[in-house]
Amino acid sequence: MNTLYLSAASNVEWLESVFAPLLEHDGFIRTLWHIFCQVRDAGGGSHIAAGIFRSDYMLHLLDTSSEKTASLKQVEMNTFSCAGACHAETVVNMHRHLAKVADASKPIGKRSLPSLVEATESTDGVVRTLRAAHKAYKTPPTDRQTCILMVVQPWNFNIADERPIEYGLWEGDVPCYRCEWPDVLSSTRLLDNGMLLYTPTTTSEAEIEVSVVYYRAGYDEAEYLTDAGRQTRLRLEMSKAIKCPDVLGHLAGTKIVQQALAEPGNVKEFLPQEKAKDVQAVFMSMQNLDTLASELEARGKALDEDTVRDQVLKPNLEGGGYNFYGTEILDHLDHMPRREWCKFTIMQRIEPPPNIHGLLLLDGGIYHGPVVAELGVLGGVVWRRGARGTLGLMRNEMAGFTFKTKPKGVNQLNVVRGYGCFDCPRLD
Amino acid sequence: MNTLYLSAASNVEWLESVFAPLLEHDGFIRTLWHIFCQVRDAGGGSHIAAGIFRSDYMLHLLDTSSEKTASLKQVEMNTFSCAGACHAETVVNMHRHLAKVADASKPIGKRSLPSLVEATESTDGVVRTLRAAHKAYKTPPTDRQTCILMVVQPWNFNIADERPIEYGLWEGDVPCYRCEWPDVLSSTRLLDNGMLLYTPTTTSEAEIEVSVVYYRAGYDEAEYLTDAGRQTRLRLEMSKAIKCPDVLGHLAGTKIVQQALAEPGNVKEFLPQEKAKDVQAVFMSMQNLDTLASELEARGKALDEDTVRDQVLKPNLEGGGYNFYGTEILDHLDHMPRREWCKFTIMQRIEPPPNIHGLLLLDGGIYHGPVVAELGVLGGVVWRRGARGTLGLMRNEMAGFTFKTKPKGVNQLNVVRGYGCFDCPRLD
Repeated sequence: MNTLYLSAASNVEWLESVFAPLLEHDGFIRTLWHIFCQVRDAGGGSHIAAGIFRSDYMLHLLDTSSEKTASLKQVEMNTFSCAGACHAETVVNMHRHLAKVADASKPIGKRSLPSLVEATESTDGVVRTLRAAHKAYKTPPTDRQTCILMVVQPWNFNIADERPIEYGLWEGDVPCYRCEWPDVLSSTRLLDNGMLLYTPTTTSEAEIEVSVVYYRAGYDEAEYLTDAGRQTRLRLEMSKAIKCPDVLGHLAGTKIVQQALAEPGNVKEFLPQEKAKDVQAVFMSMQNLDTLASELEARGKALDEDTVRDQVLKPNLEGGGYNFYGTEILDHLDHMPRREWCKFTIMQRIEPPPNIHGLLLLDGGIYHGPVVAELGVLGGVVWRRGARGTLGLMRNEMAGFTFKTKPKGVNQLNVVRGYGCFDCPRLD
Repeated sequence: MNTLYLSAASNVEWLESVFAPLLEHDGFIRTLWHIFCQVRDAGGGSHIAAGIFRSDYMLHLLDTSSEKTASLKQVEMNTFSCAGACHAETVVNMHRHLAKVADASKPIGKRSLPSLVEATESTDGVVRTLRAAHKAYKTPPTDRQTCILMVVQPWNFNIADERPIEYGLWEGDVPCYRCEWPDVLSSTRLLDNGMLLYTPTTTSEAEIEVSVVYYRAGYDEAEYLTDAGRQTRLRLEMSKAIKCPDVLGHLAGTKIVQQALAEPGNVKEFLPQEKAKDVQAVFMSMQNLDTLASELEARGKALDEDTVRDQVLKPNLEGGGYNFYGTEILDHLDHMPRREWCKFTIMQRIEPPPNIHGLLLLDGGIYHGPVVAELGVLGGVVWRRGARGTLGLMRNEMAGFTFKTKPKGVNQLNVVRGYGCFDCPRLD
């Protein structure tokens, strides 16, 4: 899956054809694409890039009357600023501990420790990938220190998912500094040779050369509304530091790319035949909203309750929480000019097995009832862009997983917003 | 030092002679001694006991004009409910991390990482000792689970210093349950054969046999003011579970025992000649307040400013925060009936080197100025009481350290009350 998206992200012509119809109306994609063009035209950036990807899957029933027809389907591919690695590890460890405690109080003959998944070392998976990228940064030997710059959002609630990565890097003697998105322009300096220098806020003793820019910010449309916001991203991309990931890697995670890859025939353009079939099978059917509407109109029809009942509408934004489900879609479209429809992907809803029950500790209290779970497979990648859109994979490894569960009635799955919980799969 | 205090604690006749003068007026010592007598007379308890001890030292200048005359002196010996192992480890790791971060931003030629002490694995030191005690608990094989019962105070602020020990035990597959002091009577049951059974609050499936009682409560006089409080301690002591530590081990940590051991000649009663001299040298001069006052009176004198100027007055209570220094002593004695004077030990004040400066983050803000530090050496012990007061040491190991620093002007050193900080010694 990593190879598929990276191959697509390396093929600029193909990407351009995918984004072309959206550039006029999707401001976020236009901003990112424009930054890519500026960097390309100036001959800036790095040929090497890295990524912490998270491919999210849910179980889907081909036939809702039989659980035997369940198979994994891709919800979305996250290529930018993926969160959850540290939380997932903490929660798995917690569940394993609690299961042990609960079992220990039973009489010795009556014990049966549930078979929980092994601890995921996903924090270390992220750290390993960043360290590999740091080592891949070639620089003529100077007496300058190099460092990883973790670009973060100010006051982000989710800091506990960032700090363990920072500490893990330092423990392996890779300096890592947090820099808040609004401070990037004042704390960094871009030299003519592309070197990015960072001055830690705690000391003014030395400028440090940035080897890797690890983005944990820059995924919100709002971060690009000011000129300073756009200049922030542009400076980072323009530098020869390795970006985790660069702007093309970022764009590869948009819904429109997922939709384009899901179209019959496209997967095998990027993957060998034997892999293509398996990968193709995890895609749900999806289409651009504008394209679908035009097709219906050509047949004298329009979007109606029947058309949207088992569909979900998704914009090109990171993370959950922006989607519309079933007939909500019609209400939402009533308030949107037709020219903006091209910004949305419409995807067949995943139909998870209905009879899985769970116990969740939500903001509002304890929930006991049917649940739906989502498996996120974390991948750590480092790659090199060759001539004419070729991809040179330098590293591609499974870097752990995340597992989240929500009540079945809740459509959105976004733990930070309180719509679900980190969880731990039970294997028996 | 562990051997000295344990030898004393094993010699009941000697202890009795030490406590006899206090029993009438020191309610706390009387309560504990009475519990010991009840257990002894009933033939209850265990022959094996364990301890997490912390011997606290400060640097003392024999000649205040020369730092070369500095040597370590014992502030006090803590044998009961010693805290700080987990915090100390966290703070040392934090200082090592911060030192690395500060150094990394210097140009490569100008770096000099301060030589901080190696990380202390004091949490694991405590866990190892408790696990050894757990293994030393012999029981006829039944299908009962055994567990360590960590008896804690409700709402204790310092829970972060307890939890890592609990988790460390579970990680090594030693079940450990927290039970709050006021819940002990309702959650446990003492069988006629001395077996102590505990019912976890989270399940009523099974009673678990307690192998080790690890006290993190029961050190406050207030916990024994009710009959239920005294019955709580009595039940735990009466059981055949191994106590960490038992009531004699607890009493060995009182100031009156330290004072008795410090009296010339007593150390060599308990230790071999070659060790006795070194150990004797770490004691400051100390005396019972009542004895001192009587001696002065016999010479027609009384306690005055000259007598108390370089002295500190200490009651038989755990931890710092109850002491009076220098002329404060006279004010304090003005409000105390003479019959209670026997409860106090008066000790020559330790005179630390004056010119050590430090930076502390206190409740009230940042402090920069002269500081005083205290080194706590953690010991993990398991011992067996033989016939006629003999001591059989089964385990005696250094279990890490704590290091605390306070502003020089502050007399009390008690981190939980905000009078000082956990710290990390710099060795260069």
